[in-house]
Amino acid sequence: MARRSGRRPGNPDTRESILDAARSAFADKGFDGASIRGIATGAGVDPALVHHYFGTKNQLFLAAMNSPIDPGEIIAQALEGDRAQVGDRLVRTFLTIWDSPAGTAGVALLRSAVGSEWTARLFREFVVTQIMRRILPRLALDPAEAPLRISLVASQMAGLAMVRYVIKIEPMVSASPEALVAAVGPNVQRYISGDLGATFAVERD
Amino acid sequence: MARRSGRRPGNPDTRESILDAARSAFADKGFDGASIRGIATGAGVDPALVHHYFGTKNQLFLAAMNSPIDPGEIIAQALEGDRAQVGDRLVRTFLTIWDSPAGTAGVALLRSAVGSEWTARLFREFVVTQIMRRILPRLALDPAEAPLRISLVASQMAGLAMVRYVIKIEPMVSASPEALVAAVGPNVQRYISGDLGATFAVERD
Repeated sequence: MARRSGRRPGNPDTRESILDAARSAFADKGFDGASIRGIATGAGVDPALVHHYFGTKNQLFLAAMNSPIDPGEIIAQALEGDRAQVGDRLVRTFLTIWDSPAGTAGVALLRSAVGSEWTARLFREFVVTQIMRRILPRLALDPAEAPLRISLVASQMAGLAMVRYVIKIEPMVSASPEALVAAVGPNVQRYISGDLGATFAVERD
Repeated sequence: MARRSGRRPGNPDTRESILDAARSAFADKGFDGASIRGIATGAGVDPALVHHYFGTKNQLFLAAMNSPIDPGEIIAQALEGDRAQVGDRLVRTFLTIWDSPAGTAGVALLRSAVGSEWTARLFREFVVTQIMRRILPRLALDPAEAPLRISLVASQMAGLAMVRYVIKIEPMVSASPEALVAAVGPNVQRYISGDLGATFAVERD
């Protein structure tokens, strides 16, 4: 588990200024457009201090999102192994994280994501750069289909989180993780490796 | 389309008082526990006035949620016809509503639902009583499995709304409705009529 704990160096006010500037930059310019230098300027500090406090741009983004885990790293682990069971493993990993104390932060992240256009944009950058972009090369998908396949997986996972942890509709709340793996895993598997229909194929031509 | 338009009788302040009292009652006591009489008392008006302004308890709930449509009624239409294609029809109907002007209200509803525990409870009552409860008898499902099947459908639909309309992850945003019906419909169909796995069966014994 890539839990980001341990030492948190520096002045709390300075840290918060940097995180505020980072959120603005990532939401306004996107992850790729934002720079450590620009974020440092926004916070009125030296770029070296940003690196010193938070490490890489990726790590700064995870801190700015209050993400208790590095989703890209954890999902990468779930992708290893038999291709035909990857749907089950992704659902199992997802439930393990959300059922853990990290799930509270997940609910907060989802709440914040849905709160406004601005926070939705920040969350979209998070999902695209920290999750989708990092798992894409590991799945060896047809490049023309990969973005749709992965966003379909994201839709099922987002909905699972909504119904089980936010809206809390039974019996999804009290169902065992393994029951949900059996129910949802094959659907995720179809999004990754199944036939998504002729309409889609025609549309991409 | 069960669009609730036309005449909106009464004093706007009185209407708002009633809707506020209704939201409190539905969130605190649930749809079944809330009564028109109690809501009227909460708003300081006569129960007959609540009926006069809003009609039935169902209609009052739809008004309190600012729902531009009656989802139960629209979904009931999608359920008619060939059982083997009901997944496709549900996704098509869902996208038609969300791609229409009513989708703006849907995003607002989802934003509000996720905002707090209180609004999540209100939204849960809405989903359970206005959607799940009303479509259950029409699907002729095994009663032991029906709640899980329908909440799984809800998870896919909620996630589709999140990714296409709220978080806005490409290519889900610009995909044609028919491409999404082809991609998502069979997954919804499996939740309704497919094998959900042995673990689930064992768990319910």
